Amino acid sequence: MTDASISRVDVAAAALRIAGRVRRTPVLRLAGADLGLPHDVALKLELLQLAGSFKPRGAFNRMLSARSPLPEAGVIAASGGNHGAAVACAARALGVPAEIFVPEITGPAKRALIAGYGARLIVGGAAYDEARKASEAHAAETGALLVHAYDQPEVLAGQGTVAAEFEADAPDLTHLLVAVGGGGLIGGIAAWHAGRAVEVVSVEPEACPALFGALRAGRPVPAPVGGVAADSLGARQVGALAFAVARKHVAASVLVPDSAIRAAQLALWRASRVVAEPGGATALAALLSGAWRAPAGARVGVVVCGGNCDPGSLA
Amino acid sequence: MTDASISRVDVAAAALRIAGRVRRTPVLRLAGADLGLPHDVALKLELLQLAGSFKPRGAFNRMLSARSPLPEAGVIAASGGNHGAAVACAARALGVPAEIFVPEITGPAKRALIAGYGARLIVGGAAYDEARKASEAHAAETGALLVHAYDQPEVLAGQGTVAAEFEADAPDLTHLLVAVGGGGLIGGIAAWHAGRAVEVVSVEPEACPALFGALRAGRPVPAPVGGVAADSLGARQVGALAFAVARKHVAASVLVPDSAIRAAQLALWRASRVVAEPGGATALAALLSGAWRAPAGARVGVVVCGGNCDPGSLA
Repeated sequence: MTDASISRVDVAAAALRIAGRVRRTPVLRLAGADLGLPHDVALKLELLQLAGSFKPRGAFNRMLSARSPLPEAGVIAASGGNHGAAVACAARALGVPAEIFVPEITGPAKRALIAGYGARLIVGGAAYDEARKASEAHAAETGALLVHAYDQPEVLAGQGTVAAEFEADAPDLTHLLVAVGGGGLIGGIAAWHAGRAVEVVSVEPEACPALFGALRAGRPVPAPVGGVAADSLGARQVGALAFAVARKHVAASVLVPDSAIRAAQLALWRASRVVAEPGGATALAALLSGAWRAPAGARVGVVVCGGNCDPGSLA
Repeated sequence: MTDASISRVDVAAAALRIAGRVRRTPVLRLAGADLGLPHDVALKLELLQLAGSFKPRGAFNRMLSARSPLPEAGVIAASGGNHGAAVACAARALGVPAEIFVPEITGPAKRALIAGYGARLIVGGAAYDEARKASEAHAAETGALLVHAYDQPEVLAGQGTVAAEFEADAPDLTHLLVAVGGGGLIGGIAAWHAGRAVEVVSVEPEACPALFGALRAGRPVPAPVGGVAADSLGARQVGALAFAVARKHVAASVLVPDSAIRAAQLALWRASRVVAEPGGATALAALLSGAWRAPAGARVGVVVCGGNCDPGSLA
């Protein structure tokens, strides 16, 4: 694995490495009529993963790829919440301590989730980027293994296992819609499908358009961070590794307004009793809002990537 | 199919009849540690079914087994909510009108669900039994096809398709835990597994013990109806058909207090972001509370049979 990019082989290796550590999440097929769409949709229910999002895949792959044993100081991460919970969950499973730096915007549900896995929680600044800097400084002091939220090859390869499973369970799909924050998930998924027939479509909130902006600029550039999905998709800049994969292997990049994300959360609940967090409903929002339309004959898959919200927010 | 009982063949025929009309719901495997149990658990996520519960399986099988075309007056049902929603959903799909009689205890969420499928909603008395009598009188007047909530062979056979799918997706299981109201689901499931190795365990709220009481009495007898799951499991008496199957082919019958049901709802959410209604969490409650303990080496499956609640009730 080079620093420049990751490949389908890296994803396959990650799948072997993390097998038995994470859940194989199921696929649910919905008829188009159930969502008011002209075609059926296959949902990868990754919100049913350990710690409520896809993030444990990358966390376990990073930790199980590191030199054994792991440092006595354990692992360290910065996170808006989901990655921190995943690292805390993986650290507990592997028997090492975890320190998680969160920004002030991280809500009480995600803080409790992280603390519930026995991690030490540190509030490290107003936004994710400050928490990240604080975590990196602390890791340099303690020698803990840093598990980046998205910009490490082992993390991308781990997240890419979502696509490997989805393909095995739904081999007929032609298009995959994936929400993007820092790009770890879409980087891994696009690496899995690179040079093959499945088209990967990125979806971001208008209020967090890091990949969309980078693709227009030709390089990662700072982007606004805001809106209803900021605590899961609010990276200030897309990761360099993910960008390198995405610029070659992402077929389309679309944005959706916050109102479409909220509507997609409600539609998921009404059609299938699935409770997605805003970031988890963002990919579906592109379909339901018409921000992306499937070409004739397309067979569409959507990754529902997280469910860490207050379920009462749907009521 | 005789009136006296149903068989594995009837369930297999139902599966063919309703294929493509209902969803094939997925199975999620959880590690024992994720639920504080000494063994893993396979969950059949039947709450992700159309209309939010297993009930459309029986409704479609009853309607598709009837003489074609269906009566001009359409179909009629009495229901605490889930069966009514299922019949309304199936009637819309098959293009016939539906009239649904509900008791006064049926809450606004379930009423809205039924009305949302375009059915005519009639409040027919204080409890389910009065609504049932009103629906039967009305069906005799109009000639509509009556779809019973549990005591018709086509309904049992349809519900039994849950077990056929669960077995196909998780053929290793040795024990199945199933919640019971009027007995349609467990009757169909026990018929599928009759005379085979899988042991079927019935779970009921202490406040709605219709099958438990019938097994003790040796025949269906009136039971109390109350508690947190009354709107889905609150049958005054278990169905004669279900009882005939259950007395022979249900290995154990246990009761759980309402507090265990609430705790199971929370545990499901915390471990897997699954939002089950009280009746949907009742089978798991038997495991988590210790009301039923798996023998050594058992491989345990649990049907999570409904999700029609206000998600805010978990908050």
